[in-house]
Amino acid sequence: MRHFPVLKMLFTWAVFCLSAIALAQPPRGPFVVSPQVLPDKKVSFRYLAPAAKEVRLSGGQFGAANVPMTKDSIGIWSITVGPVRPDIYPYNFVVDGVSVMDPANEDFFPNERFKASLVDVPGFTPLVHAMQDVPHGAVSYEYYPSAQGSTGSVVVYTPPGYDKNNAARYPVFYLISGTTDTEETFFKVGRTNLILDNLIAAGKAKPMIVVMPYGNVDARVAEQKGGVKPADPVGRESEDAMRRMRGFSDDMTQNIIPYIDKAYRTIPNRDNRAIGGFSRGGGQTLRTAFWNMNQFAWVCCYSAYLPPSEMDGSYASLVSNPDATNKQLKLLWVGVGTEDFLYNDVATFLNYLNAKKIGYKSLITGGGHTWMNVKTYLTETAQLLFK
Amino acid sequence: MRHFPVLKMLFTWAVFCLSAIALAQPPRGPFVVSPQVLPDKKVSFRYLAPAAKEVRLSGGQFGAANVPMTKDSIGIWSITVGPVRPDIYPYNFVVDGVSVMDPANEDFFPNERFKASLVDVPGFTPLVHAMQDVPHGAVSYEYYPSAQGSTGSVVVYTPPGYDKNNAARYPVFYLISGTTDTEETFFKVGRTNLILDNLIAAGKAKPMIVVMPYGNVDARVAEQKGGVKPADPVGRESEDAMRRMRGFSDDMTQNIIPYIDKAYRTIPNRDNRAIGGFSRGGGQTLRTAFWNMNQFAWVCCYSAYLPPSEMDGSYASLVSNPDATNKQLKLLWVGVGTEDFLYNDVATFLNYLNAKKIGYKSLITGGGHTWMNVKTYLTETAQLLFK
Repeated sequence: MRHFPVLKMLFTWAVFCLSAIALAQPPRGPFVVSPQVLPDKKVSFRYLAPAAKEVRLSGGQFGAANVPMTKDSIGIWSITVGPVRPDIYPYNFVVDGVSVMDPANEDFFPNERFKASLVDVPGFTPLVHAMQDVPHGAVSYEYYPSAQGSTGSVVVYTPPGYDKNNAARYPVFYLISGTTDTEETFFKVGRTNLILDNLIAAGKAKPMIVVMPYGNVDARVAEQKGGVKPADPVGRESEDAMRRMRGFSDDMTQNIIPYIDKAYRTIPNRDNRAIGGFSRGGGQTLRTAFWNMNQFAWVCCYSAYLPPSEMDGSYASLVSNPDATNKQLKLLWVGVGTEDFLYNDVATFLNYLNAKKIGYKSLITGGGHTWMNVKTYLTETAQLLFK
Repeated sequence: MRHFPVLKMLFTWAVFCLSAIALAQPPRGPFVVSPQVLPDKKVSFRYLAPAAKEVRLSGGQFGAANVPMTKDSIGIWSITVGPVRPDIYPYNFVVDGVSVMDPANEDFFPNERFKASLVDVPGFTPLVHAMQDVPHGAVSYEYYPSAQGSTGSVVVYTPPGYDKNNAARYPVFYLISGTTDTEETFFKVGRTNLILDNLIAAGKAKPMIVVMPYGNVDARVAEQKGGVKPADPVGRESEDAMRRMRGFSDDMTQNIIPYIDKAYRTIPNRDNRAIGGFSRGGGQTLRTAFWNMNQFAWVCCYSAYLPPSEMDGSYASLVSNPDATNKQLKLLWVGVGTEDFLYNDVATFLNYLNAKKIGYKSLITGGGHTWMNVKTYLTETAQLLFK
């Protein structure tokens, strides 16, 4: 079985040389299969580059950080690594020092600043993010009127049974991706729709609408005005960063929520409205929630934190009245991995909450600042919401 | 204005070097703005690669086929080209011979076999595919039960006013992308949703649902069974190619149309059902329509054709009764560019239709087998459908 694709490629390459001339089709090169997950969960990667001097696999998140690949007689570089723990991982090829996506793989990581392909290593039994034979919700791309006359884009999951002629109304989970991610990342990398489909089918999560906005409002406004997208702010708690946090929060409360409550059959009150996010989106989550306690009763923070100084300074009324705060927040949830570069900051935040007697739930996993962990945190929190 | 981004990058790079240490954030490199469309429609491209020996811009579809870029003192390669005719174009960088997407640009070309970024050069006044201040429809990703127990994915545009509690029903346009494209290509590259939004707002197109399937059913089935995605068939009219055409047609009539007619408020009859497609999708369009004359009254073929031998052999009853065929087909539309590698085949097809007195409308443009032309053809045909 392992030799079959190579033989097939060789044949295809030969036929291609003839057919490209005969049919005058634009050249596509020989057919390359990549990635290929083998039954034992080893994974083969292949990349066509007859003229390259060195090709490496960059897959640090599955233990293949910088692995040399081997060239065959027709110029296809390949490597088999693993076994790889079943999950979805980003990877690249590094071709003579240049990082490239896998051209044979259409699954990719939506992002503003880097380009990575995705490999999906399925479980021996289906994982919670796998396509399974259950009723499926839909994922919709919607435009909404946003800040400064710009048009925002938001990705919306509606659960199975969200029938157009049905009168049922649903709670809403606003879910925000990280720095340089886009509104597509929680769909394409986080598999939010399939996780929800599977949890709902198993009776583990309540049917809910999930709204995935774009976190970089300044960039969108600048681009739509014909200007240059601004760089990320320098410093996570700098003045510029906080101004942008406020801009995101305002976009959420003034534009996104009103749009969603009008366009979808929501239950438009705080008890049925959750907010969650990863990395910068986790910071946006905590601030948007604490600035607007009348809007959200459920708060989920993935791999993010607020510094004690900001808690003391900006949310004094919440901090100084823990009983009232604990009554208002039906859930404050924080997850982080022990290898996350933000782990120490998150630990400081949790110890601060302990000291102030503000209740929360937490999940400390292994691993780092990764979307593998984000899927774990989403799976955990989706089962707690609206119950 | 042109010097400003470079100064900003230099500053950001300096700050980055400090902040990466101070904040222990994962390194992202200096902030690179690319592409940047200037007011005179020249376009600047930039790529960070301090160690590269040569970087070229590959943008043949806007006259920059293989243009060397210049490196500045911090390792950012750049080039300004044009003026470029306003449209959306694919491009890549070629870094020491290796083709890469633009990491600073999140707009990309969804495809199974190549990776290209997209640059959107806006018109001096808004083009038909531009985001404008008009009511917007939604774009939904849906799963449906497909061939051999697989789960298919389809992208669905619903027009503005497709309100969930409304009883209005709509005609449906099934729109199929080309070889190696995916179900996302007509959305992300073809901008089908914005073209329809703008045409509907201007009263030029009827409100309609547009359904964009994935054309490579064999590949999806193989992948979901854990197998290897098959190579493209060798020869556009080979036995293997025709078997796959039949498989696509069956998926359309047995799975996709029944799913859509159940999930959406369609007008489920042939007079309100159109089919169209580009390249391989155009061949799938013509065959699916001619094999199922009871299903589609409107047929739109972009940059594709059927050979006379197949017309004579497989559709003899249609060809030999032109009056009846012309009555049945409310529209048979064919568009192609004079530089398209399929131009001669399409011309032969049109002359064949003339000889057989089968009525059609056609649009011959300049240009080649490109998505710039696809948008033109879609714009033209969307205004003819269901009228």
